[in-house]
Amino acid sequence: MQIDLNSDLGESFGAWRMGQDEALMASITSANVACGFHAGDPSVMRRTVALAKRHGVAVGAHPGFPDLVGFGRREMQASPEEVEDFVLYQVSALAGIASTEGMPLQHVKAHGALYNQACRDRKLADAIARAITAFNPGLILFGLPGSELLEAGQRAGLRVAAEVFADRAYEPDGSLASRRKPGSVIHDARSVVERAVRMVREGRVVATNGSTISLTAHTICLHGDTPGSGDLSRQVRTGLEAAGIRVAPLTTTL
Amino acid sequence: MQIDLNSDLGESFGAWRMGQDEALMASITSANVACGFHAGDPSVMRRTVALAKRHGVAVGAHPGFPDLVGFGRREMQASPEEVEDFVLYQVSALAGIASTEGMPLQHVKAHGALYNQACRDRKLADAIARAITAFNPGLILFGLPGSELLEAGQRAGLRVAAEVFADRAYEPDGSLASRRKPGSVIHDARSVVERAVRMVREGRVVATNGSTISLTAHTICLHGDTPGSGDLSRQVRTGLEAAGIRVAPLTTTL
Amino acid sequence: MQIDLNSDLGESFGAWRMGQDEALMASITSANVACGFHAGDPSVMRRTVALAKRHGVAVGAHPGFPDLVGFGRREMQASPEEVEDFVLYQVSALAGIASTEGMPLQHVKAHGALYNQACRDRKLADAIARAITAFNPGLILFGLPGSELLEAGQRAGLRVAAEVFADRAYEPDGSLASRRKPGSVIHDARSVVERAVRMVREGRVVATNGSTISLTAHTICLHGDTPGSGDLSRQVRTGLEAAGIRVAPLTTTL
Amino acid sequence: MQIDLNSDLGESFGAWRMGQDEALMASITSANVACGFHAGDPSVMRRTVALAKRHGVAVGAHPGFPDLVGFGRREMQASPEEVEDFVLYQVSALAGIASTEGMPLQHVKAHGALYNQACRDRKLADAIARAITAFNPGLILFGLPGSELLEAGQRAGLRVAAEVFADRAYEPDGSLASRRKPGSVIHDARSVVERAVRMVREGRVVATNGSTISLTAHTICLHGDTPGSGDLSRQVRTGLEAAGIRVAPLTTTL
Repeated sequence: MQIDLNSDLGESFGAWRMGQDEALMASITSANVACGFHAGDPSVMRRTVALAKRHGVAVGAHPGFPDLVGFGRREMQASPEEVEDFVLYQVSALAGIASTEGMPLQHVKAHGALYNQACRDRKLADAIARAITAFNPGLILFGLPGSELLEAGQRAGLRVAAEVFADRAYEPDGSLASRRKPGSVIHDARSVVERAVRMVREGRVVATNGSTISLTAHTICLHGDTPGSGDLSRQVRTGLEAAGIRVAPLTTTL
Repeated sequence: MQIDLNSDLGESFGAWRMGQDEALMASITSANVACGFHAGDPSVMRRTVALAKRHGVAVGAHPGFPDLVGFGRREMQASPEEVEDFVLYQVSALAGIASTEGMPLQHVKAHGALYNQACRDRKLADAIARAITAFNPGLILFGLPGSELLEAGQRAGLRVAAEVFADRAYEPDGSLASRRKPGSVIHDARSVVERAVRMVREGRVVATNGSTISLTAHTICLHGDTPGSGDLSRQVRTGLEAAGIRVAPLTTTL
Repeated sequence: MQIDLNSDLGESFGAWRMGQDEALMASITSANVACGFHAGDPSVMRRTVALAKRHGVAVGAHPGFPDLVGFGRREMQASPEEVEDFVLYQVSALAGIASTEGMPLQHVKAHGALYNQACRDRKLADAIARAITAFNPGLILFGLPGSELLEAGQRAGLRVAAEVFADRAYEPDGSLASRRKPGSVIHDARSVVERAVRMVREGRVVATNGSTISLTAHTICLHGDTPGSGDLSRQVRTGLEAAGIRVAPLTTTL
Repeated sequence: MQIDLNSDLGESFGAWRMGQDEALMASITSANVACGFHAGDPSVMRRTVALAKRHGVAVGAHPGFPDLVGFGRREMQASPEEVEDFVLYQVSALAGIASTEGMPLQHVKAHGALYNQACRDRKLADAIARAITAFNPGLILFGLPGSELLEAGQRAGLRVAAEVFADRAYEPDGSLASRRKPGSVIHDARSVVERAVRMVREGRVVATNGSTISLTAHTICLHGDTPGSGDLSRQVRTGLEAAGIRVAPLTTTL
């Protein structure tokens, strides 16, 4: 029994710092690196890849909407063609930077509103899958289990990784509860660890209405943008390992 | 005796159109494609690469300062590290897009103020050469003959292409006269053709003070942002060929 | 019987030109000036206000989403608070520039996707009305007749102007047909003139399904972003005047 | 004997936090609020003005170069016309937002590279003075004592405030030592307080070469972007008051 741990990193921008990248890298196995559209800049990207390399963490692209002031969290009606092109642009930019650090890309995980929209909109999902397939069909595509995004990846012949969120509440239909809802982000470390272990072992989680839902978990997302996120990620990793679950990169499982 | 003809293309952005890309492509052998920082966007980049492919024109990256409203024409005090990183980012992004169209990158030509600063500032020139070497040492670096930029390319072991401007006035020291100076851009087609032929045949041009200066010419830049630029480029190409000069891609000469 | 003619102007950006501002100014009575978020920049704004002044055309703010590459035409899930703040920012910026040219602002017309969303979303409509009321309750708010936007303006105590589009197809519910639909933009000058006259005289227009719908018209929008828009606007103005309709600024009617 | 204390605030942007605005507001009398070009966004601007109001702190505009990723710290060759227009845009935008909070603008202080360039370049200095005079000749212009910027303000008939930096090293010619030089930022609180007191009382400070230089001080800048800046600013204020110097807004002195 094994699992990958991923986190969104490299979300600083220019003079602004964000996240606990150093602390997170010690616990995770896959880093989703922002590509300059919703966060990150070329220099932050290079530093983040170098940091991942030092920690032996696999690197993936984390492309988002071109919405810096909104941090890529606002849904936008971009066309599939636009999405395909700007995902390709961002993935390519990171791949080039990573290659100069001797790091191949492992995966692609869309960010924020782009992720959410692509999980339910087949045309956007296909657009993302097309961009990845055209650039490098060896990349792994992340998405919610059962989502349009993962199905688009499978249709395109990509390896896909079903992603779960141990610190986010789930709706009964398996989608993530909106960040605007109270209780949508779980802060209690013990609950997060318990949810993580159960997700991997049983493929289950309790939804907002109290029902238990099933979900496949290839990778667990750990958030890095809160003060205690370094600690929390360490506890999740320790808790998983204490429960006999091996934390290992995706490439060894998929 | 042969020469390459290059032009800056793909400088539209979003809803804004710029340039005579269709017309220019018919005459040139190398296209410098804007990469989204001073002009261009992911969709424009893709369309421009596809257009180059249809015309059998080689594709190069045209990275610029992150200054959209200034079109990358305003000098900026960016550090060598910043320049290295954002050149790498832009070149990588275009290379990825081009690869999905089945087009390898041939060269890199810095844009506007970045080009001008790197032609005289050794640290910026080295930064650009480092970015290219790290990403793909097979790329050809464009620059003014005798400039710091070309020397940096040679130090880094890159192939370099000395670029001349048939429609721009030269200072006696071999630098380009500032665009703000009256007469710095030559509009008379006959003069432009004559200068082009003489530059290739004799390696000479008459400077602003009337003196004749020597310069090496591997490639001639044709501007595409003026109304008659399609015509002018055709006349330059025809004029060169009429003078017995072969117009051919750089890869056959360097 | 009288009517105002408005057009979206000042949509150039940096080195990119857009629109037929000079030609349009000769026919219209109200200019909606882009404020730098979807188009326009501080220098374009100043030049556009100066041009309006020379033509005796009233100036209004044309705020849009912060989406330059999408030209403000992509719907975005911005919160009412964000919308209130960025509308206030844009209106203030233009008002300051206009004041230095001796031009008071007359009105505010939201741009593109912001306009469309605010016409049907009461919270966004109220946010726009709040921004205007707080800044200057003497400004006139433009919107589709019967829309949430106009109702929000009225609730806030603002003067509102019902805007019609003589060159755009209408759905039976009075909304504009999407630009993506074939036939949504009417190019035939005679049809446009006839529709304009009927809209003012009878308050009616034929919708996409052939039915006739009623609408109030205080101002007609003329588009300036097509090649023949200068001609078309002149024909509309001439046609209206030939039909005995006075073309006059809003301040004399509302 | 009295002095104004100012600080650069409102430099958060979107999801990114920067500075110790709450802590600083308790000690200062003038807040320089970023206007969205190098930092700040419409919502941050509104919150910063509201915070200043609660603390009884006067509000000024802090316009910068359009260089978000470089935080406005990179010198740029913008033309005087561009500078005039974008300063006017930024000052107007903040003035509008501040007016809706019932706060008039008190002053304008250029940011970073724009400040530095305008302090030594007469044309840029005049451009800034023109923008302010055109918008509101009652605004106070900040600048280094003896700089082109202050002289431009005086030529334009503006009230000007000579600004000193208690935590920055000075060159013998009265300019600020570059941030890249070691020792250019003074972190020792006691030294900063002593320098502040001596600047106000004697109009003198020790320069990098050990010589003592004279400077006029109407306002002291306190930096807010370092972890202990809240404490430091409190100590400076307390130290000044203990030395019998009244800390009071500029409007009571100039």
